[in-house]
Amino acid sequence: MSEQWLDDIKWTDDGLVPAIAQDYRSGKILMMAWMNRESLALTVQEQRAIYWSRSRGKLWRKGEESGHVQQLHGIRLDCDSDVILLQVEQLGGIACHTGREHCFYKTLEDGQWQPVEPVLKDPKAIYQADKGGESSE
Amino acid sequence: MSEQWLDDIKWTDDGLVPAIAQDYRSGKILMMAWMNRESLALTVQEQRAIYWSRSRGKLWRKGEESGHVQQLHGIRLDCDSDVILLQVEQLGGIACHTGREHCFYKTLEDGQWQPVEPVLKDPKAIYQADKGGESSE
Repeated sequence: MSEQWLDDIKWTDDGLVPAIAQDYRSGKILMMAWMNRESLALTVQEQRAIYWSRSRGKLWRKGEESGHVQQLHGIRLDCDSDVILLQVEQLGGIACHTGREHCFYKTLEDGQWQPVEPVLKDPKAIYQADKGGESSE
Repeated sequence: MSEQWLDDIKWTDDGLVPAIAQDYRSGKILMMAWMNRESLALTVQEQRAIYWSRSRGKLWRKGEESGHVQQLHGIRLDCDSDVILLQVEQLGGIACHTGREHCFYKTLEDGQWQPVEPVLKDPKAIYQADKGGESSE
């Protein structure tokens, strides 16, 4: 496959592009993370979400530790070619490293960010205790 | 209202945060743009999406020219406090400056990005001809 589709993307100066993961059935927005060229190519090749962890400076195969893999069902690019949308099936039903279904669980109420979604599984039971879990970064 | 909720956000070095706009009924992801502290405060105050246009270096009151205002129905923050989700009603049913319902209209097919959503209204009819329209940036 030609790499023109990768050249078409407007990467940031750091060589990244934001990627939004959306549940392909419910439409729920699960998370947003970043991809570099290699992680996007691998995402398409392996048909699962593979991000670039900015904090760890390495590829982040979503679910590599938790089993909460995001299987790819579709991929979109926006009008300006600078944002990716992944339509995924979230294995395990948990996208967030806090053990919640998705990462957008805080809402603005009375001038404060309040958590409004339940923890479905204790993060300690998701990740090995000595590793501290895979944050969304 | 205290400004603690604005301090809680992890702004980029440029003082920005990405904001995803989602149709609050259909769940469709309409677009992603950027906000600075002022635009986010105004978004909550005026209950409509107000972004920061990086290309024009000024506030971008979504719909100011097109009438395609995004009325705010809810606002979320993610686990890392570095991405905003706006749940909105898209007036006019068109979020994209290309005249499409939303900005994520290109899909990867046969190794190429292909537009797969119809133009609902000619951008020339949406924007004044001499202004060239409000891009998503």
